[in-house]
Amino acid sequence: MSRVYNFSAGPSMLPDFVLARVKEELLEYRDTHQSVMEMSHRSKEYLSIIEACEAKFRSMLGVSDDYTVLFLQGGAYTQFAMLPMNLMTVNRTADYLITGSWGEKAYLEGKKFGEARIVASSEDKNFTYIPEIDASRLNPDADFMHFCYNNTIFGTSFSSTPSSIVPLAADVSSMILSKPLDVNDYGILYAGAQKNMGIAGLTVVVIRKDLCDRSPVDIPSMFSYSIQQKNQSMFNTPATFPIYVLSVMLDWLDEEIGGLAAMQKINKEKSSIIYDYLDESNMFYGTVEKSSRSDMNICFISEDDSINKEFCAAATAAGFLNLAGHRSVGGMRASVYNAMPIEGVKALRDFMSTFEKEHK
Amino acid sequence: MSRVYNFSAGPSMLPDFVLARVKEELLEYRDTHQSVMEMSHRSKEYLSIIEACEAKFRSMLGVSDDYTVLFLQGGAYTQFAMLPMNLMTVNRTADYLITGSWGEKAYLEGKKFGEARIVASSEDKNFTYIPEIDASRLNPDADFMHFCYNNTIFGTSFSSTPSSIVPLAADVSSMILSKPLDVNDYGILYAGAQKNMGIAGLTVVVIRKDLCDRSPVDIPSMFSYSIQQKNQSMFNTPATFPIYVLSVMLDWLDEEIGGLAAMQKINKEKSSIIYDYLDESNMFYGTVEKSSRSDMNICFISEDDSINKEFCAAATAAGFLNLAGHRSVGGMRASVYNAMPIEGVKALRDFMSTFEKEHK
Repeated sequence: MSRVYNFSAGPSMLPDFVLARVKEELLEYRDTHQSVMEMSHRSKEYLSIIEACEAKFRSMLGVSDDYTVLFLQGGAYTQFAMLPMNLMTVNRTADYLITGSWGEKAYLEGKKFGEARIVASSEDKNFTYIPEIDASRLNPDADFMHFCYNNTIFGTSFSSTPSSIVPLAADVSSMILSKPLDVNDYGILYAGAQKNMGIAGLTVVVIRKDLCDRSPVDIPSMFSYSIQQKNQSMFNTPATFPIYVLSVMLDWLDEEIGGLAAMQKINKEKSSIIYDYLDESNMFYGTVEKSSRSDMNICFISEDDSINKEFCAAATAAGFLNLAGHRSVGGMRASVYNAMPIEGVKALRDFMSTFEKEHK
Repeated sequence: MSRVYNFSAGPSMLPDFVLARVKEELLEYRDTHQSVMEMSHRSKEYLSIIEACEAKFRSMLGVSDDYTVLFLQGGAYTQFAMLPMNLMTVNRTADYLITGSWGEKAYLEGKKFGEARIVASSEDKNFTYIPEIDASRLNPDADFMHFCYNNTIFGTSFSSTPSSIVPLAADVSSMILSKPLDVNDYGILYAGAQKNMGIAGLTVVVIRKDLCDRSPVDIPSMFSYSIQQKNQSMFNTPATFPIYVLSVMLDWLDEEIGGLAAMQKINKEKSSIIYDYLDESNMFYGTVEKSSRSDMNICFISEDDSINKEFCAAATAAGFLNLAGHRSVGGMRASVYNAMPIEGVKALRDFMSTFEKEHK
């Protein structure tokens, strides 16, 4: 089988380990004589999968018993609404950091539920950096402070968790499981699975248990953290197959990679290969400030837009897929999530280098 | 491979045709050199899958251009909230028929958004029949009338679409694609995929386009029919793999079954095998009125509860899975969705018959 290198911002590549295991178990999962896709979510066969998945996830990320892990649906965008619907309910105000499109969308949803305040933004320079946070602007009465850790579209990332005086809420969709993270710094974390946790259709929410008590009783049941917590992700039928794929992703991280610190080292090595090339290139340059660079999404561009177009077309023809940048940035974006092998990154670097030489 | 017969209420069995095709295409979808699970939802490779899926679905069910087809997430329970959030917005009142647990849950969510009125109920006899609808009780000002077509838990079903003077809204999760349905009778139809349309994590909504105009602008974007319509199910990342499985299910219905009329004939034949046995049995009897029997979910019971328990255990040991009835009914339930082969139904009937003889 000849595989392409898929640099999509998500859904994106899966590790060979995961693809092989899923195929091997697809029609008959171990000794159950059925496919995971066919299992009743309440059967003992499936419960053993989802319970093991949660245990592995907790162990991998270091999630204590103070937190609930929820396997929900609807993507991060659904959380943009569930978050204020459930938690902006004490003082009806929350702080938002705006470091890109997704943080801004979260803010716009928050405004529908109360006073959402912008306390820092990098919109002045088209989100090409992570702004400093002026502590005097933070509201001690905010029900939470929200931010997006890694900005998929603009290719920036916080390098560490910002400090906060109120419960911290974060969209970690494009960085979860890419490096260690101290969950205890957060009130709530959430992420779509289709970047580092498998396939589309699953959203993982990690929420401090006491925050679930804030859920108002008159909101729709499906959108209540309290109800989801009480039912342990089984309030209705969860996305059974994507949860299974996450469990295989966790096995890969554990057995083949060796955990999150090892994953971070590999991810740093991968992104450096491209950034180092960009810093030397006379044709392409990175679009964001060096100190704000993301290890997951690498945005770059040439001054000559005809070169950008030609590069994307040539890359696609050579089996490097989905390198066109988001329309709000232009140029190119290479998303190099956990599953992108280092060989793919080196091959892309070599392709860029050759392309540059040929277009001198 | 030795397969079990899975009588789960959902998720449940998939046709061999579908399992084989999904496995064959799993790692490398046709000439794309990637798995469907890895495809960017906005790539041309994936767009061809989702567009073909919608076209096949429209053709199979007979959905005209007056209707939008949405591929969403969150199950029918999410629709219980989205429905009133979007549509109970003209006169802020809606009529609900209560014929089982799911219809009742939909009603309880509706009450959170306006005046939800119960216009018919079969709760007086524990939902063992489909009630007559007294036309004089219907509210001509209702924004919609909601009902659940097939009641998974209680094993009853409407035999045809009830007439309505306002837009009809229906949860068709456990009967969609099991027989022809005139979509033009409805304002909105919705269904979770995990019974007759593949795997969990996908919800299909069919809504008359003009009704989308009712969506208020201040509701969460993810829950707005209007926004989902404008973005053709791509407002955020849809459940890409479950949508692909639906497209294979539709191929199976078309190529191997021959469409919905043929499927209905087979389903009627399957349910008759069990119902005919029950009508003759001295040990087991069906729990619902004959005229209200569902062809999808067959509920039956023995007067002796120790027999019920022994039967379920013996059936499981013999490879007939998930036959225990819902706790609100007790006894047994055999869910025989499209994918359950007639051989499975005959084998269950024979097993019941032998069990009865051995326990005389």
